[in-house]
Amino acid sequence: MSHRVVIVGGGFGGLYAAKGLRRAPVELTLVDRRNYHLFQPLLYQVATGALSPGEIASPLRHVLSGNPNTSVWLAEVTDIDVDGRKLVLREHKLPYDTLVLAAGAGNHYFGHDQWQPDAPGLKSIEDATEIRSRILRAFEAAEMETDPDARRACLTFVLIGGGPTGVELAGALGEIANDTLRHDFRHINPAEAHILLLEGGDRILSAFPPQLSEAAERSLIRLGVRTRTKALVTGIDADGVTILCDGATQRIPARTVLWAAGVAPSPLGAILCRRIGAQPDRAGRVIVEPDLSVPGHPEIFVIGDMASVTHQDGKPLPGVAPVAMQQGRYVARLIGKRLRHEPVEPFHYWNKGNLATIGRRSAVADFGFIRFSGPLAWLAWLFVHLMYLVGFENRVLVLIKWTYNYITRNRGARLITRR
Amino acid sequence: MSHRVVIVGGGFGGLYAAKGLRRAPVELTLVDRRNYHLFQPLLYQVATGALSPGEIASPLRHVLSGNPNTSVWLAEVTDIDVDGRKLVLREHKLPYDTLVLAAGAGNHYFGHDQWQPDAPGLKSIEDATEIRSRILRAFEAAEMETDPDARRACLTFVLIGGGPTGVELAGALGEIANDTLRHDFRHINPAEAHILLLEGGDRILSAFPPQLSEAAERSLIRLGVRTRTKALVTGIDADGVTILCDGATQRIPARTVLWAAGVAPSPLGAILCRRIGAQPDRAGRVIVEPDLSVPGHPEIFVIGDMASVTHQDGKPLPGVAPVAMQQGRYVARLIGKRLRHEPVEPFHYWNKGNLATIGRRSAVADFGFIRFSGPLAWLAWLFVHLMYLVGFENRVLVLIKWTYNYITRNRGARLITRR
Repeated sequence: MSHRVVIVGGGFGGLYAAKGLRRAPVELTLVDRRNYHLFQPLLYQVATGALSPGEIASPLRHVLSGNPNTSVWLAEVTDIDVDGRKLVLREHKLPYDTLVLAAGAGNHYFGHDQWQPDAPGLKSIEDATEIRSRILRAFEAAEMETDPDARRACLTFVLIGGGPTGVELAGALGEIANDTLRHDFRHINPAEAHILLLEGGDRILSAFPPQLSEAAERSLIRLGVRTRTKALVTGIDADGVTILCDGATQRIPARTVLWAAGVAPSPLGAILCRRIGAQPDRAGRVIVEPDLSVPGHPEIFVIGDMASVTHQDGKPLPGVAPVAMQQGRYVARLIGKRLRHEPVEPFHYWNKGNLATIGRRSAVADFGFIRFSGPLAWLAWLFVHLMYLVGFENRVLVLIKWTYNYITRNRGARLITRR
Repeated sequence: MSHRVVIVGGGFGGLYAAKGLRRAPVELTLVDRRNYHLFQPLLYQVATGALSPGEIASPLRHVLSGNPNTSVWLAEVTDIDVDGRKLVLREHKLPYDTLVLAAGAGNHYFGHDQWQPDAPGLKSIEDATEIRSRILRAFEAAEMETDPDARRACLTFVLIGGGPTGVELAGALGEIANDTLRHDFRHINPAEAHILLLEGGDRILSAFPPQLSEAAERSLIRLGVRTRTKALVTGIDADGVTILCDGATQRIPARTVLWAAGVAPSPLGAILCRRIGAQPDRAGRVIVEPDLSVPGHPEIFVIGDMASVTHQDGKPLPGVAPVAMQQGRYVARLIGKRLRHEPVEPFHYWNKGNLATIGRRSAVADFGFIRFSGPLAWLAWLFVHLMYLVGFENRVLVLIKWTYNYITRNRGARLITRR
């Protein structure tokens, strides 16, 4: 009987692990709650009507139809039977010889889960279409509102968190207000929208060098986005946000508040830690060995946003797509080598660089040896995202949409759909 | 003060009326619950994963941004104050001099509304993504099911109603089972799916001549679809359908049942009839005068699926897109003529023909003087639908997707999303 590998999660980590095991002499099962791989880096473009969900998602079965050794199971994992080597699903138990956990991360509200309904985060397609509806409904409500204060609240958008997601959402909102909707309304001027990006630290895009943070802020200002650093959110409700800034409490009336401040690893990490008697790191991620297996269980691997790995430079690896991809490929290679009884090197992350975009023709790029911003960084961003997008068809469609959106300043997927 | 025209509904009727009034000296308001125009004839392609919702929907504000005299209101109509000439919305009242009702139709379960949860119909984007999820989940459940009877029920799809929507859905389902999913599963063969099209009358596509109904049935058989005519549905629940066929009651166990059997006009028609003291026709539509206005109220027009109009040949006009488009254009012209005190001709429907498609390279076409089926009819279908699709960008995207789907036999938008 062949070696049974079970992978949980069809994100970047799980998908690259599965693809890497395509020719390995294993019987592979990939388990996911969703039937598609989602290209999360472009999710903000769905939330702002530039792309459709189908263009950044690919059916897992289709992506893996070239894997003759792979079954895909649409199921939810409820527990792990570590001693019996079985993955516990809602209605089945799935035996494994090697288990790879790559279930990613969700939104994290730092102990304030009650904020979630009033400040949705952006992790799933449903999140993206919900945020898209909220943004568009806010302009619609403003068009019919006659009270100036209420209208101002309708046209105020608060984004919490100055990382890449917050910055990219803010840039896209700036474009929507200034360009996309310019001729669409008769009673309001969409360009009067107030877009506010709140960041708790002392600069946005803190993973980038300071000069790129400054460049990003200048680009945001050109799009009408105001940035507020060292702003601590102390309350969120249906009518707005309360912040603590420079020791003073301030209330910002706003109809639309979006959360891009923190992610928490899948609860599966905590379940695993309990079952193997390990402590997660402060962020709740599973601390793994240099080969990404968990202590005492060389047959269980944790990769991607769920794993806590220290980089060779001593810093923890960030929860980004390239880390998950490289870890997925590494684990696939490792499993193959083990089966052939070959020695295994520890995981080594190769940082190819960091990119974030801020609207039309503007982005920041940090490739370590070279750092730049502006149209060239924007082209680099476009190229990299198209290259890694899964599926040739999606690449063609996204390229056409981007070209069309760039020329016409339109965003065709501006649909308000119901939950 | 200029003449105030209010149009309810941004479907084919309302949109063509609004576009026709672009240069008229009127103050125009278009009211819709949705912020987009939906190209309903292609909705079944969203329900079967071939197209994304954004590709067959266009934001109404964008479509009408070239109408300087037009406001768009996202609102729900609750009543009509016929004497005060005001449209009653949930939170506002909207005064009019001329009112055009074009609110379309929803699903009709012939007094069995309890069937709705187990047999969804296909009228909205939410319907389409829900049906898409159900179809895909059925195959997923079959893949994990070990009991042969339960697996057979998972792979049984019952379509109720042999009109164009039912036939097109059945054809697309046949393609999904035979082509799209061919390499996707390891434990089931999707081609073993049972697709059953039930029709109450004695042939499918009864609006077409009998020889085209036969051609359509032959095409369906090639796709593995069985057609059952004179089948009366007497019960639908979560486990299947009960039918009365040739005097015998039969039970068909099926996980997925879809409704394409009947439409009912928007409840706004009944509200109007009450307010003007008129009787609707048997199907609940508003009976209108030869100029599409309602009896006694020349300032109120009803068009599209809500209106009951008798064709010059004595038959009632069908609830199809071309009728609504021509009525919208006619009412726009009529309003312009009235304002210029010019005489008005009664509405005359020009039947350009009837088309329905049944999967790859197969369709039926009835242009009156010529009737044919096969690849040529299919090309005519493609051409007509691309031509009438709203928005240049959508046309380009749909053309690319169709080309790609045709070559690869893939359907990229196969996403299971949550309600």
